Amino acid sequence: MKGYVQVYTGNGKGKTTASLGLAIRAAGAGLRVYIVQFLKKGDYSEIKALSKFENITVEQYGLGSFVRGNPSQEDKAAGALGYQKLCDLLKNNEHDLVIAEEGNVAVTCNLFSENELLALIDMKPDNVELVITGRGASKAVIDKADLVTEMKEIKHYYKQGVKARVGIEK
Amino acid sequence: MKGYVQVYTGNGKGKTTASLGLAIRAAGAGLRVYIVQFLKKGDYSEIKALSKFENITVEQYGLGSFVRGNPSQEDKAAGALGYQKLCDLLKNNEHDLVIAEEGNVAVTCNLFSENELLALIDMKPDNVELVITGRGASKAVIDKADLVTEMKEIKHYYKQGVKARVGIEK
Repeated sequence: MKGYVQVYTGNGKGKTTASLGLAIRAAGAGLRVYIVQFLKKGDYSEIKALSKFENITVEQYGLGSFVRGNPSQEDKAAGALGYQKLCDLLKNNEHDLVIAEEGNVAVTCNLFSENELLALIDMKPDNVELVITGRGASKAVIDKADLVTEMKEIKHYYKQGVKARVGIEK
Repeated sequence: MKGYVQVYTGNGKGKTTASLGLAIRAAGAGLRVYIVQFLKKGDYSEIKALSKFENITVEQYGLGSFVRGNPSQEDKAAGALGYQKLCDLLKNNEHDLVIAEEGNVAVTCNLFSENELLALIDMKPDNVELVITGRGASKAVIDKADLVTEMKEIKHYYKQGVKARVGIEK
Protein backbone atom coordinates (compact mmCIF):
# COMPACT_ATOMS: atom_id res chain seq x y z
CA MET A 1 0.00 0.00 0.00
CA LYS A 2 1.32 3.44 -0.88
CA GLY A 3 1.73 5.72 2.10
CA TYR A 4 1.16 9.45 2.31
CA VAL A 5 1.96 12.35 4.61
CA GLN A 6 -0.88 13.64 6.79
CA VAL A 7 -0.71 16.81 8.89
CA TYR A 8 -3.15 17.78 11.66
CA THR A 9 -2.65 21.33 12.81
CA GLY A 10 -4.62 24.33 14.08
CA ASN A 11 -5.57 25.59 17.53
CA GLY A 12 -8.65 23.40 18.11
CA LYS A 13 -9.12 20.23 20.15
CA GLY A 14 -8.80 17.01 18.19
CA LYS A 15 -5.30 16.76 16.74
CA THR A 16 -3.76 14.25 19.16
CA THR A 17 -7.15 12.59 19.47
CA ALA A 18 -7.37 12.11 15.71
CA SER A 19 -3.88 10.61 15.60
CA LEU A 20 -4.94 8.19 18.35
CA GLY A 21 -7.94 7.23 16.26
CA LEU A 22 -5.70 6.69 13.23
CA ALA A 23 -3.42 4.49 15.32
CA ILE A 24 -6.18 2.17 16.48
CA ARG A 25 -7.89 2.00 13.10
CA ALA A 26 -4.54 0.94 11.61
CA ALA A 27 -3.98 -1.55 14.42
CA GLY A 28 -7.45 -2.96 13.80
CA ALA A 29 -6.36 -3.70 10.24
CA GLY A 30 -3.19 -5.42 11.46
CA LEU A 31 -0.86 -2.56 10.49
CA ARG A 32 2.20 -1.83 12.61
CA VAL A 33 2.14 1.56 14.31
CA TYR A 34 4.81 3.61 16.06
CA ILE A 35 4.00 6.84 17.88
CA VAL A 36 6.78 9.25 18.84
CA GLN A 37 5.42 11.87 21.22
CA PHE A 38 7.37 15.07 21.60
CA LEU A 39 7.06 17.34 24.64
CA LYS A 40 4.74 15.01 26.51
CA LYS A 41 5.47 12.71 29.36
CA GLY A 42 3.05 10.89 31.57
CA ASP A 43 0.77 7.97 31.91
CA TYR A 44 -2.16 9.45 30.04
CA SER A 45 -5.34 7.40 29.70
CA GLU A 46 -4.60 6.91 26.01
CA ILE A 47 -1.25 5.30 26.80
CA LYS A 48 -3.06 2.77 29.00
CA ALA A 49 -5.60 2.10 26.23
CA LEU A 50 -2.97 1.72 23.50
CA SER A 51 -1.06 -0.82 25.59
CA LYS A 52 -3.81 -3.30 24.67
CA PHE A 53 -2.46 -3.38 21.12
CA GLU A 54 0.62 -5.44 20.38
CA ASN A 55 1.12 -3.67 17.09
CA ILE A 56 1.16 -0.15 18.55
CA THR A 57 4.27 1.24 20.25
CA VAL A 58 4.28 4.64 21.93
CA GLU A 59 7.43 6.37 23.04
CA GLN A 60 7.53 9.72 24.81
CA TYR A 61 10.40 12.14 24.26
CA GLY A 62 9.30 14.95 26.48
CA LEU A 63 10.03 16.14 29.94
CA GLY A 64 6.40 16.53 30.87
CA SER A 65 6.40 20.28 31.05
CA PHE A 66 5.20 21.83 27.85
CA VAL A 67 8.10 23.82 26.40
CA ARG A 68 7.54 27.45 25.56
CA GLY A 69 10.18 29.83 24.33
CA ASN A 70 13.71 28.57 24.61
CA PRO A 71 14.01 24.90 25.52
CA SER A 72 16.46 23.80 28.20
CA GLN A 73 19.41 21.54 27.41
CA GLU A 74 17.35 18.60 28.72
CA ASP A 75 14.41 19.48 26.48
CA LYS A 76 16.76 19.69 23.50
CA ALA A 77 18.40 16.37 24.32
CA ALA A 78 15.01 14.62 24.64
CA GLY A 79 13.85 16.17 21.37
CA ALA A 80 17.02 15.09 19.57
CA LEU A 81 16.54 11.51 20.76
CA GLY A 82 12.95 11.54 19.48
CA TYR A 83 14.05 12.95 16.16
CA GLN A 84 16.73 10.29 15.83
CA LYS A 85 14.13 7.65 16.65
CA LEU A 86 11.91 8.90 13.80
CA CYS A 87 14.89 8.76 11.41
CA ASP A 88 15.62 5.19 12.48
CA LEU A 89 11.97 4.16 12.16
CA LEU A 90 11.73 5.53 8.64
CA LYS A 91 15.08 4.03 7.67
CA ASN A 92 14.28 0.61 9.08
CA ASN A 93 10.86 0.57 7.42
CA GLU A 94 9.33 -1.91 9.84
CA HIS A 95 6.16 0.11 10.55
CA ASP A 96 3.23 1.02 8.32
CA LEU A 97 2.13 4.10 10.23
CA VAL A 98 4.57 6.43 11.96
CA ILE A 99 3.15 9.30 14.00
CA ALA A 100 5.23 12.33 14.99
CA GLU A 101 3.00 13.63 17.74
CA GLU A 102 3.49 17.39 18.31
CA GLY A 103 6.09 17.38 15.53
CA ASN A 104 5.06 20.87 14.45
CA VAL A 105 5.34 22.22 17.99
CA ALA A 106 8.77 20.61 18.31
CA VAL A 107 9.88 22.83 15.41
CA THR A 108 8.28 25.96 16.88
CA CYS A 109 10.02 25.19 20.17
CA ASN A 110 13.39 24.74 18.45
CA LEU A 111 13.81 21.12 19.43
CA PHE A 112 14.77 20.55 15.81
CA SER A 113 14.58 22.66 12.67
CA GLU A 114 11.91 22.95 10.01
CA ASN A 115 14.44 21.51 7.55
CA GLU A 116 14.92 18.48 9.75
CA LEU A 117 11.15 17.93 9.82
CA LEU A 118 11.02 18.26 6.03
CA ALA A 119 13.90 15.77 5.80
CA LEU A 120 11.71 13.18 7.56
CA ILE A 121 9.17 13.53 4.77
CA ASP A 122 11.95 13.05 2.21
CA MET A 123 13.29 9.93 3.90
CA LYS A 124 9.85 8.32 4.28
CA PRO A 125 9.72 5.01 2.42
CA ASP A 126 6.99 4.88 -0.20
CA ASN A 127 4.89 2.36 1.77
CA VAL A 128 4.89 4.25 5.09
CA GLU A 129 2.10 6.60 6.19
CA LEU A 130 3.63 9.50 8.12
CA VAL A 131 1.40 11.61 10.37
CA ILE A 132 2.59 14.89 11.87
CA THR A 133 0.46 16.67 14.46
CA GLY A 134 0.64 19.89 16.40
CA ARG A 135 -0.44 23.47 16.01
CA GLY A 136 1.58 25.87 13.89
CA ALA A 137 2.52 23.65 10.94
CA SER A 138 4.79 25.72 8.72
CA LYS A 139 3.93 26.59 5.14
CA ALA A 140 6.71 24.37 3.82
CA VAL A 141 5.39 21.38 5.77
CA ILE A 142 1.85 22.04 4.54
CA ASP A 143 3.15 22.35 0.96
CA LYS A 144 5.00 19.05 1.20
CA ALA A 145 2.16 17.08 2.86
CA ASP A 146 -0.48 15.16 0.93
CA LEU A 147 -3.35 15.78 3.36
CA VAL A 148 -3.69 18.66 5.79
CA THR A 149 -6.56 19.28 8.19
CA GLU A 150 -6.71 22.42 10.27
CA MET A 151 -8.50 21.80 13.54
CA LYS A 152 -10.03 25.21 14.04
CA GLU A 153 -11.27 26.23 17.44
CA ILE A 154 -14.78 27.60 17.09
CA LYS A 155 -15.50 27.33 20.79
CA HIS A 156 -13.64 25.74 23.70
CA TYR A 157 -14.83 25.01 27.19
CA TYR A 158 -11.52 25.98 28.78
CA LYS A 159 -12.87 29.49 28.35
CA GLN A 160 -15.66 28.45 30.76
CA GLY A 161 -12.87 27.44 33.14
CA VAL A 162 -13.04 23.70 32.44
CA LYS A 163 -9.71 22.02 33.29
CA ALA A 164 -8.30 18.98 31.49
CA ARG A 165 -10.21 15.91 32.70
CA VAL A 166 -8.95 12.35 33.05
CA GLY A 167 -10.48 10.22 30.30
CA ILE A 168 -11.51 13.21 28.20
CA GLU A 169 -8.39 15.32 27.70
CA LYS A 170 -5.71 13.19 29.37
CA MET B 1 -17.29 14.52 36.77
CA LYS B 2 -19.32 17.13 34.94
CA GLY B 3 -19.88 16.33 31.28
CA TYR B 4 -20.03 18.71 28.33
CA VAL B 5 -21.16 18.73 24.72
CA GLN B 6 -18.43 18.49 22.08
CA VAL B 7 -19.03 18.95 18.35
CA TYR B 8 -16.59 18.00 15.58
CA THR B 9 -17.64 19.34 12.22
CA GLY B 10 -16.18 20.71 8.98
CA ASN B 11 -15.20 19.17 5.67
CA GLY B 12 -11.72 17.90 6.60
CA LYS B 13 -10.50 14.43 7.56
CA GLY B 14 -10.36 13.75 11.28
CA LYS B 15 -13.87 13.98 12.73
CA THR B 16 -14.68 10.28 13.10
CA THR B 17 -11.04 9.61 13.83
CA ALA B 18 -11.04 12.11 16.68
CA SER B 19 -14.18 10.57 18.17
CA LEU B 20 -12.46 7.18 18.03
CA GLY B 21 -9.52 8.67 19.88
CA LEU B 22 -11.88 10.14 22.49
CA ALA B 23 -13.50 6.74 22.92
CA ILE B 24 -10.26 4.91 23.62
CA ARG B 25 -8.86 7.62 25.86
CA ALA B 26 -12.06 7.41 27.91
CA ALA B 27 -11.90 3.62 27.94
CA GLY B 28 -8.28 3.81 29.11
CA ALA B 29 -9.52 5.76 32.11
CA GLY B 30 -12.19 3.16 32.84
CA LEU B 31 -15.09 5.28 31.58
CA ARG B 32 -18.06 3.60 29.87
CA VAL B 33 -18.46 4.55 26.24
CA TYR B 34 -21.31 4.07 23.77
CA ILE B 35 -20.98 4.98 20.10
CA VAL B 36 -24.09 5.29 17.92
CA GLN B 37 -23.06 5.49 14.26
CA PHE B 38 -25.56 6.90 11.80
CA LEU B 39 -25.41 6.18 8.06
CA LYS B 40 -22.52 3.72 8.35
CA LYS B 41 -22.57 -0.02 8.21
CA GLY B 42 -19.69 -2.36 7.87
CA ASP B 43 -16.84 -4.07 9.62
CA TYR B 44 -14.42 -1.18 9.51
CA SER B 45 -10.95 -1.65 10.98
CA GLU B 46 -11.91 0.63 13.88
CA ILE B 47 -14.80 -1.64 14.83
CA LYS B 48 -12.37 -4.54 15.09
CA ALA B 49 -10.01 -2.44 17.19
CA LEU B 50 -12.73 -1.17 19.52
CA SER B 51 -13.94 -4.71 20.18
CA LYS B 52 -10.85 -5.13 22.40
CA PHE B 53 -12.46 -2.82 24.94
CA GLU B 54 -15.14 -4.19 27.22
CA ASN B 55 -16.25 -0.70 28.15
CA ILE B 56 -16.83 0.49 24.58
CA THR B 57 -20.00 -0.46 22.67
CA VAL B 58 -20.49 0.50 19.04
CA GLU B 59 -23.82 0.22 17.29
CA GLN B 60 -24.41 1.04 13.63
CA TYR B 61 -27.71 2.48 12.47
CA GLY B 62 -27.00 2.84 8.80
CA LEU B 63 -27.66 0.90 5.66
CA GLY B 64 -24.09 1.15 4.44
CA SER B 65 -24.80 3.46 1.57
CA PHE B 66 -24.17 7.05 2.46
CA VAL B 67 -27.50 8.88 2.26
CA ARG B 68 -27.73 11.97 0.06
CA GLY B 69 -30.86 13.91 -0.68
CA ASN B 70 -34.05 12.22 0.37
CA PRO B 71 -33.59 9.13 2.51
CA SER B 72 -35.54 5.97 1.73
CA GLN B 73 -38.07 4.53 4.20
CA GLU B 74 -35.41 2.04 5.31
CA ASP B 75 -32.87 4.81 5.88
CA LYS B 76 -35.45 6.71 7.94
CA ALA B 77 -36.36 3.66 9.98
CA ALA B 78 -32.68 2.92 10.75
CA GLY B 79 -32.12 6.56 11.69
CA ALA B 80 -35.17 6.59 13.97
CA LEU B 81 -33.90 3.51 15.78
CA GLY B 82 -30.51 5.15 16.30
CA TYR B 83 -32.13 8.31 17.57
CA GLN B 84 -34.28 6.32 20.01
CA LYS B 85 -31.15 4.51 21.19
CA LEU B 86 -29.48 7.83 21.96
CA CYS B 87 -32.55 8.95 23.93
CA ASP B 88 -32.49 5.71 25.91
CA LEU B 89 -28.76 5.97 26.56
CA LEU B 90 -29.08 9.50 27.90
CA LYS B 91 -32.15 8.62 29.94
CA ASN B 92 -30.62 5.50 31.46
CA ASN B 93 -27.41 7.36 32.32
CA GLU B 94 -25.21 4.25 32.40
CA HIS B 95 -22.46 5.63 30.15
CA ASP B 96 -19.95 8.41 30.74
CA LEU B 97 -19.28 9.21 27.09
CA VAL B 98 -21.98 8.98 24.42
CA ILE B 99 -20.95 9.60 20.81
CA ALA B 100 -23.48 10.43 18.08
CA GLU B 101 -21.30 9.66 15.08
CA GLU B 102 -22.46 11.57 11.96
CA GLY B 103 -25.23 13.13 14.06
CA ASN B 104 -24.98 16.38 12.10
CA VAL B 105 -25.20 14.58 8.76
CA ALA B 106 -28.24 12.65 10.02
CA VAL B 107 -29.98 16.02 10.42
CA THR B 108 -28.88 17.27 6.98
CA CYS B 109 -30.19 14.01 5.50
CA ASN B 110 -33.53 14.36 7.30
CA LEU B 111 -33.16 11.21 9.36
CA PHE B 112 -34.29 13.34 12.27
CA SER B 113 -34.76 17.05 12.79
CA GLU B 114 -32.44 19.70 14.14
CA ASN B 115 -34.86 20.13 17.05
CA GLU B 116 -34.56 16.45 17.86
CA LEU B 117 -30.76 16.75 17.90
CA LEU B 118 -31.03 19.80 20.17
CA ALA B 119 -33.39 17.81 22.42
CA LEU B 120 -30.61 15.25 22.96
CA ILE B 121 -28.43 18.03 24.34
CA ASP B 122 -31.26 19.07 26.65
CA MET B 123 -31.85 15.55 27.95
CA LYS B 124 -28.14 14.90 28.58
CA PRO B 125 -27.55 14.14 32.26
CA ASP B 126 -25.06 16.49 33.89
CA ASN B 127 -22.39 13.82 34.25
CA VAL B 128 -22.46 12.58 30.65
CA GLU B 129 -20.08 13.82 27.93
CA LEU B 130 -21.95 13.97 24.63
CA VAL B 131 -19.98 14.11 21.37
CA ILE B 132 -21.65 14.89 18.04
CA THR B 133 -19.68 14.53 14.82
CA GLY B 134 -20.30 15.15 11.14
CA ARG B 135 -19.96 17.94 8.67
CA GLY B 136 -22.55 20.67 8.49
CA ALA B 137 -23.31 21.25 12.19
CA SER B 138 -26.12 23.80 12.33
CA LYS B 139 -25.73 27.18 13.99
CA ALA B 140 -28.14 26.19 16.77
CA VAL B 141 -26.13 23.05 17.57
CA ILE B 142 -22.90 25.07 17.60
CA ASP B 143 -24.52 27.67 19.87
CA LYS B 144 -25.68 25.01 22.31
CA ALA B 145 -22.39 23.04 22.41
CA ASP B 146 -19.62 23.73 24.90
CA LEU B 147 -16.72 22.87 22.58
CA VAL B 148 -16.73 23.01 18.80
CA THR B 149 -13.84 22.19 16.49
CA GLU B 150 -14.11 22.70 12.77
CA MET B 151 -11.96 20.22 10.89
CA LYS B 152 -11.08 22.34 7.91
CA GLU B 153 -9.77 20.73 4.77
CA ILE B 154 -6.62 22.53 3.70
CA LYS B 155 -5.54 19.75 1.35
CA HIS B 156 -6.81 16.23 0.74
CA TYR B 157 -5.21 13.40 -1.17
CA TYR B 158 -8.49 12.22 -2.63
CA LYS B 159 -7.88 15.06 -5.06
CA GLN B 160 -4.76 13.14 -6.13
CA GLY B 161 -7.10 10.20 -6.75
CA VAL B 162 -6.29 8.33 -3.53
CA LYS B 163 -9.14 5.98 -2.57
CA ALA B 164 -10.11 5.07 1.00
CA ARG B 165 -7.54 2.56 2.28
CA VAL B 166 -8.09 -0.23 4.80
CA GLY B 167 -6.41 0.70 8.09
CA ILE B 168 -6.16 4.39 7.18
CA GLU B 169 -9.65 5.53 6.21
CA LYS B 170 -11.71 2.41 6.91
